[in-house]
Amino acid sequence: MLLNPGLEGRIATTHTLYGGLQLILPGEVAATHRHTPNALRFIMEGDGAYTVVDGEKMTMSFGDFVLTPNWTWHDHGSEAGGPVVWLDGLDIPLISMLEGIFFEPFAQEAQSLTKPLNNSVGEYGKSGLLPSWQRPSGTLSPLLKYTWKDAREAVSSLSLHAESPFDGAIMEYVNPVNGGPSLPTMASFLQRLKPGQKTEPHRHSESAVYLAVEGNGCTEINGKRYEWSPGDVFALPTWSTHHHENASANRDAVLFSFTDGPVMKAFNLFREQAL
Amino acid sequence: MLLNPGLEGRIATTHTLYGGLQLILPGEVAATHRHTPNALRFIMEGDGAYTVVDGEKMTMSFGDFVLTPNWTWHDHGSEAGGPVVWLDGLDIPLISMLEGIFFEPFAQEAQSLTKPLNNSVGEYGKSGLLPSWQRPSGTLSPLLKYTWKDAREAVSSLSLHAESPFDGAIMEYVNPVNGGPSLPTMASFLQRLKPGQKTEPHRHSESAVYLAVEGNGCTEINGKRYEWSPGDVFALPTWSTHHHENASANRDAVLFSFTDGPVMKAFNLFREQAL
Amino acid sequence: MLLNPGLEGRIATTHTLYGGLQLILPGEVAATHRHTPNALRFIMEGDGAYTVVDGEKMTMSFGDFVLTPNWTWHDHGSEAGGPVVWLDGLDIPLISMLEGIFFEPFAQEAQSLTKPLNNSVGEYGKSGLLPSWQRPSGTLSPLLKYTWKDAREAVSSLSLHAESPFDGAIMEYVNPVNGGPSLPTMASFLQRLKPGQKTEPHRHSESAVYLAVEGNGCTEINGKRYEWSPGDVFALPTWSTHHHENASANRDAVLFSFTDGPVMKAFNLFREQAL
Amino acid sequence: MLLNPGLEGRIATTHTLYGGLQLILPGEVAATHRHTPNALRFIMEGDGAYTVVDGEKMTMSFGDFVLTPNWTWHDHGSEAGGPVVWLDGLDIPLISMLEGIFFEPFAQEAQSLTKPLNNSVGEYGKSGLLPSWQRPSGTLSPLLKYTWKDAREAVSSLSLHAESPFDGAIMEYVNPVNGGPSLPTMASFLQRLKPGQKTEPHRHSESAVYLAVEGNGCTEINGKRYEWSPGDVFALPTWSTHHHENASANRDAVLFSFTDGPVMKAFNLFREQAL
Repeated sequence: MLLNPGLEGRIATTHTLYGGLQLILPGEVAATHRHTPNALRFIMEGDGAYTVVDGEKMTMSFGDFVLTPNWTWHDHGSEAGGPVVWLDGLDIPLISMLEGIFFEPFAQEAQSLTKPLNNSVGEYGKSGLLPSWQRPSGTLSPLLKYTWKDAREAVSSLSLHAESPFDGAIMEYVNPVNGGPSLPTMASFLQRLKPGQKTEPHRHSESAVYLAVEGNGCTEINGKRYEWSPGDVFALPTWSTHHHENASANRDAVLFSFTDGPVMKAFNLFREQAL
Repeated sequence: MLLNPGLEGRIATTHTLYGGLQLILPGEVAATHRHTPNALRFIMEGDGAYTVVDGEKMTMSFGDFVLTPNWTWHDHGSEAGGPVVWLDGLDIPLISMLEGIFFEPFAQEAQSLTKPLNNSVGEYGKSGLLPSWQRPSGTLSPLLKYTWKDAREAVSSLSLHAESPFDGAIMEYVNPVNGGPSLPTMASFLQRLKPGQKTEPHRHSESAVYLAVEGNGCTEINGKRYEWSPGDVFALPTWSTHHHENASANRDAVLFSFTDGPVMKAFNLFREQAL
Repeated sequence: MLLNPGLEGRIATTHTLYGGLQLILPGEVAATHRHTPNALRFIMEGDGAYTVVDGEKMTMSFGDFVLTPNWTWHDHGSEAGGPVVWLDGLDIPLISMLEGIFFEPFAQEAQSLTKPLNNSVGEYGKSGLLPSWQRPSGTLSPLLKYTWKDAREAVSSLSLHAESPFDGAIMEYVNPVNGGPSLPTMASFLQRLKPGQKTEPHRHSESAVYLAVEGNGCTEINGKRYEWSPGDVFALPTWSTHHHENASANRDAVLFSFTDGPVMKAFNLFREQAL
Repeated sequence: MLLNPGLEGRIATTHTLYGGLQLILPGEVAATHRHTPNALRFIMEGDGAYTVVDGEKMTMSFGDFVLTPNWTWHDHGSEAGGPVVWLDGLDIPLISMLEGIFFEPFAQEAQSLTKPLNNSVGEYGKSGLLPSWQRPSGTLSPLLKYTWKDAREAVSSLSLHAESPFDGAIMEYVNPVNGGPSLPTMASFLQRLKPGQKTEPHRHSESAVYLAVEGNGCTEINGKRYEWSPGDVFALPTWSTHHHENASANRDAVLFSFTDGPVMKAFNLFREQAL
């Protein structure tokens, strides 16, 4: 199902963001390169694909959220027996508007693996615990993979008083070293709508791309209803009135999303209005 | 075993820090109060004691690390069948030197429980995931309990290249919202020494209190050897040459420690020297 | 003289910035309003115009640099006997691209004057000295007017070792409370080229708008030479190789400029290359 | 006049601070050295003495405020015809309590002068203007001398609404690069009491050392009145109720002071109470 009319396939865009489902075939390999746009992946189907970032290979399974931050060397491939599908999220429209796109191919197709498999999960994967020796000081997150198990449990265990009236139980994926957004220009979220939950409408000066991960539901945007089920991608334009509904009376619905909020907040441009 | 000669019981102090093992008897209750010194607890024996901080009750088991930050209302008690032992760590010597001690009793013995049991673990207990709605903006950690399971796994899964030559596999307990120390004046750590591991000597301008948690070993401080096994508490004075040894050939040794490093680092006073 | 071919009048723009000379006639009054784009003024001719920002009226004379930051109420007028000319600098292209434009008219034409004339210069006009009582904590600069006398002296007194090989003696106008840019999205500069000085070429991923203030000279941009004298406005597109030349053998040349550097630096997109 | 009974000469101390008037004789030279305690000077009598900090020589006249920050190489001397008197302010009691004192003599008596005379005033002496090229990024202030003329004008031009009810017109000497305190551990202030002004009483959890610079007045501390005139030094202990009075009906009174406020504020220990 495609919610943005006029676009081919499962793609949704805003003025700053691009989100699109991508099919990776067995044996496929993408050559190593780096660029100033930031990219993220959220795995939807299939096991056995991997991403390598700055010498660290990460395996990817359903629901895992993986980063390829600004100017990191990265490549990917698939050792799966069948097709793998993930959501690719990028800030290419933003970086292009800012005339800030730089790109560099790596000298070889594949980079060397200089760190253990899934290393950053071992080093940064326990909450409130950071390596004490030579902790990175930059703004990029050293945690590159956020597992589905942790994220799904987090939105389930959030207590009622910490829920948002507009989004239900919503958690942000953050840089564990400073609590900032997981990527400099994009904030990413997982949210859970309880069976039958209908959130209150609001609008805000950030745009977003959504991916339906679990369950069935509907998001109403400026009076138009977009029904979704797993694998659907849709965009929320800036300052659009919207709310979410879980269509099921007995199952959770879960949405992944990413926004340009960090850009708007950096310059006093963020505002939000309940309606 | 007591390593600080001249002190009664299991107590160790530096010019800024106090650490002492405390025995809590069944049915014991401490009345609610708050004070400017920060306090921490590391549980050594017994299940069934609890701490309440600002309306949140936390259960405590072996190896759990629990905070009662500066000026938070707190009380504790024990619903255990037998005695419970924990390490109490405080910055009372520091706050006293700075003439900054303020204390206030609560109007009632017990405060009301306004949040779910172990709430902060549910909200902040998954790495790289923070509640998106009404996230706290202050400097105090909203994560109040760091479980033994997570911390023990973290020091086990740290890869070799992230180990410190002076401390082995060492992780810092941090405020997940900003990556800063878990308490404003004290940094706390869990470190693992592999079987037979002997670290390299160094010294630094921060003092520390150590608690042996697992295994048997020895810390040499300024040429004097302090042997330790679980439950031993000892102090490392500022600028003292020291290294650690795991005395066992087949078991890990684990040390918990807290230091005044955040104070020294805040004012350009931190320095470290390999020897 | 107009350096941007194809534009009418004294206007220069980049993808993020707008700069244009504006003529203000005696008795002219602009009604009070506020908007999310940031604006700046650099006075080129005439005395007697004024700007009011959040209840503070500021007189403006040659060379004064005046801010109307994001979402502050502002209006202006002229009590001069003749025309006044200033450079208007805005980030409207940027805020428009980000879909972040909000605008609000004030209920009355003029706002009340709640502070003394030129108040912020009295409160924040001495370097290294800030009011101790109720200092503002936001990101907007409380210093709203930077006098020509101070800025001109600053570029004159800068010692040789602090000069840039690419820009000569260049100073940034900053927020005195935190040292950040004077406006959230735009950095502003005054630079002095000594008689006969020719700077080295470089390029960078920020765009700029320049205003020639004193002297005569030339800026070469991507191999094309743009000669300038006081009142000329020209734009430097992103990643364009450029250098500056003072055409006089015995007089200083002075350029005012503003750039989108704060935006690029906020997201790891700034890069610079000597050529 | 000496306000701290039991101390010899013009000295005042708190648990963290030391302040003492120092007499420098013609031809006197202090050898170059550096140490972790921070030091400040406020000149009271005589022209012709100088301080050198990291290769920059600074002349010193009445009312100038000069820094020798933590671990900077410094020496001083006098080329004056007669005696020079300044206030020496240090955080030695604090750094000693923290066991953080390190000291190093320079290889030669005098260091080389690598920068122009009074260079930092040229580079950082105009408010809201910072060098754009190679601006320092550390926490230490690059502005090392704050002139009397600027500071005296600043406390005179402060508008009524920016005055403190407890301190009159009071300005803080700050690091112009980040707006933080001029020294990491000590905040310094100049305050003006108008003729006949009597401030309201309050107390706070920071201690201070005061130097009377101009006029005659009185500070009441915990019910005891300390009368002062130029050259008097007195201490304000932590949490002491106090207010100031200008004894003259037609002249300003001016006080210089420094406090340990940055230390208390760094750890949530600052509190203030009007009385």
